[in-house]
Amino acid sequence: MKKVEHIKDAMAKGSWLTYRPEIKILDCTIRDGGLINDHGFEDGFVKAVYETCVAAGIDAMEFGYKADKKIFSPSDNGDWKFCDEDTLRRIVDDNPTDLQIAVMADAERTDYHHDILPKSESVIDIVRVATYIHQIPTALNMIKDAADKGYRTTVNLMAISTIQERELGEALEILAETPVCAIFIVDSFGSYYSEQIRDLTVQFLAAVEGKGIEIGIHAHNNQMLAYANTLEALIVGANRLDATINGMGRGAGNCPLELLLGFLKNPKFQLRPVLKCIQEEFLPLEQKGEMEWGYKIPYMITGQMNQHPRTAIKMRAGENPDDYVGFYDQMIEEE
Amino acid sequence: MKKVEHIKDAMAKGSWLTYRPEIKILDCTIRDGGLINDHGFEDGFVKAVYETCVAAGIDAMEFGYKADKKIFSPSDNGDWKFCDEDTLRRIVDDNPTDLQIAVMADAERTDYHHDILPKSESVIDIVRVATYIHQIPTALNMIKDAADKGYRTTVNLMAISTIQERELGEALEILAETPVCAIFIVDSFGSYYSEQIRDLTVQFLAAVEGKGIEIGIHAHNNQMLAYANTLEALIVGANRLDATINGMGRGAGNCPLELLLGFLKNPKFQLRPVLKCIQEEFLPLEQKGEMEWGYKIPYMITGQMNQHPRTAIKMRAGENPDDYVGFYDQMIEEE
Repeated sequence: MKKVEHIKDAMAKGSWLTYRPEIKILDCTIRDGGLINDHGFEDGFVKAVYETCVAAGIDAMEFGYKADKKIFSPSDNGDWKFCDEDTLRRIVDDNPTDLQIAVMADAERTDYHHDILPKSESVIDIVRVATYIHQIPTALNMIKDAADKGYRTTVNLMAISTIQERELGEALEILAETPVCAIFIVDSFGSYYSEQIRDLTVQFLAAVEGKGIEIGIHAHNNQMLAYANTLEALIVGANRLDATINGMGRGAGNCPLELLLGFLKNPKFQLRPVLKCIQEEFLPLEQKGEMEWGYKIPYMITGQMNQHPRTAIKMRAGENPDDYVGFYDQMIEEE
Repeated sequence: MKKVEHIKDAMAKGSWLTYRPEIKILDCTIRDGGLINDHGFEDGFVKAVYETCVAAGIDAMEFGYKADKKIFSPSDNGDWKFCDEDTLRRIVDDNPTDLQIAVMADAERTDYHHDILPKSESVIDIVRVATYIHQIPTALNMIKDAADKGYRTTVNLMAISTIQERELGEALEILAETPVCAIFIVDSFGSYYSEQIRDLTVQFLAAVEGKGIEIGIHAHNNQMLAYANTLEALIVGANRLDATINGMGRGAGNCPLELLLGFLKNPKFQLRPVLKCIQEEFLPLEQKGEMEWGYKIPYMITGQMNQHPRTAIKMRAGENPDDYVGFYDQMIEEE
C-alpha cells in the first residue's frame, strides 16, 4: 500500500501545479462508439479521430475489435469489428507517429491464433483482452498468445460490479501473474460511485504491487459519473485512463476526453484539437440523428440498478423511446 | 472536526444500507431554471414541478427571486423574478403539504424591508439570501431582517472559487454568528473538482461547529461534476443538497434531482414522480427548443477556466453557437 500512500501524497494540495508523467490516456472512441453503429464508421471519421489523437498527444487509440468472422458476419458488421491489417493501414499507413495502435480482443469471440498476426507483420501495438470473470482461463491463453507474438497486452476485467469480492481477489491474483502491462477496472454498467471506485483502485493497486503492472479505469456515464470516477481512480493511483471524444460510446457513453484533458496538467496534452474534432466531426454526426449516446434517463435507470444497458438501448430504439416511467416500472417489476 | 470523522465513519462501507435522516433536499428547478427564460414559466409547468416535489418527498422548493421592481422591470421579467405573495398562492394556495416554500433574496437586488412580508402574512417558509463576499454586510442585514420577521433563513455564498482562502475564513466566521439554518457552498462557475469540494466542506463544517448550522452544496454541471461534487459534499457531512429536475439551470445546469434520489436511501424520497415530470413536462419543453441547459462544450470551457458562464451563454445565443474552437481561442486570448 506504500505506493498508494506515496501517490496520495504526491497528488495532495501542494502539487496541483505538477503532473504525473506515468499517466497515459487511451482513446477508445472508435471501438466503444462502434458498439452504437455496428462498427460502421466511414474512413474519413476514423481518420479525423486518429489525427486528433496524434495532435492532442494521446498515448494510444483503440480502433475496434478483432472479432471472429465465423461468429460475426462481415455483412452485418463494419470493418472496425474486425480491424484487419489492411483496414487499419487505410487510416494509419505505417503509423509514423508516437500514438500506439490498440485493438480489443474479446475472450471467446476472437480467433486469436489466426487473426492476431505476429507483431512484425502488424501495425498494432497493443492487444487489449476483454474478459468476463468466467472467461479468465481463455483470457489467460489470449494474453500469452499476444505477448508471445510480440505485443504489449492489457486486460479489461468487465462487469466488476457483478463479481463477488472473493472471486475478484482470486481473479486479480491470477491476472497479476500474466505479462499484461495494465489491468483495467471496467464499470460496464456505469453503476459505481466514486467511493467504490476508490476502494476498487486501492484493491487493484495492492494486487499488482511489485509486478510492474499499471491499473487502468474504463468508466461509463450512466449516472453522469464517468469523468468523476476516472478522476477518483487517477487520484488514488490509476495511471491508465480510457476516454472518448465527446464521450461517445454505447448507451450513456464514456469519460469525455475533453474533460480529462482539461484536468491533466501534462503539457504534452492539447485540448484544442479535440474541440476542433468535436466541432467538425461530432456535431454533424449528432445532427444526422443516426447515433445516440450520452446521459439519458433510461441509461441512468439501468446504471442505478446495476444492470447491463441493453434493455435501455433496446427501449431507446423502439416505439416509445421517451416512456421513462413505463421503462422504470418494467425494470422494477423484473428486478 | 469530530463531527466530520463521525459522519465519515457512519458513511463508511458498512452503512450503505442506512441513511442520514438529517439530509434534506431543496429543489431549485424554477429558481435556477428561471435564469434561462427570464423567470417566465407558465403556471402549469410550475404547478407540475411543485406537485412532483410534494410526491417525491422533497423537503423544500425554491420558486424564484424576491427581486426589487425598481431595479428589474416586471415587463422584462416573469412573475418568478419577484415571487409576489399572490403569484406563489396561484400555485401552492396555502401550501397544505410538508414541502417548504423557499425564495431567493439577492444582496443589493432586493428591497427586503418592503418586499419580504412578515411570516404571518406569507406562505414562504425559507428566505435564501444569496451574496457575493463583498456584499456580506448587506447580506447580514437581510438575514437579520428575515429572521426577525419569522422566516427560516439560509445563505448562499456565491462564486467561492474566486475568493482568497483567508477572506473565506473570515466570511465563514461572520456568517456562523448569524441566525441562518444553513450556509451553502456555491460552485457558481462549475469549476471545482471533488477533492476541492471535500476540502471546502470540511472547512465549512469546522466553521459552524457547535453553532447548530448545517452546510449545504449548490453545484453546477459545467465539468459534468455537479452530481459527483454533491455526493462528495454529502459524504463529508453536508446535509443540505440543492438539485433540479432534469438538471435544469442556467448554462450547464445543476445537480440532477433524479440522480440524487437514486443515491439517497431515505425511503421518503420517491424517484418515480420525478421521472414522470421529466417525461411529461421537460421533454416537451426541450422539444420546443426555446430553453437550453446542460453540459455543453462552451460551458465546459468557462468551468475549466473558472469563469462566469455568461460569455458561453452569450455565445450559445449568438450567430455561431457551434464555434467551439473560436470560443476557446477567444477565452484563452482574454485570460
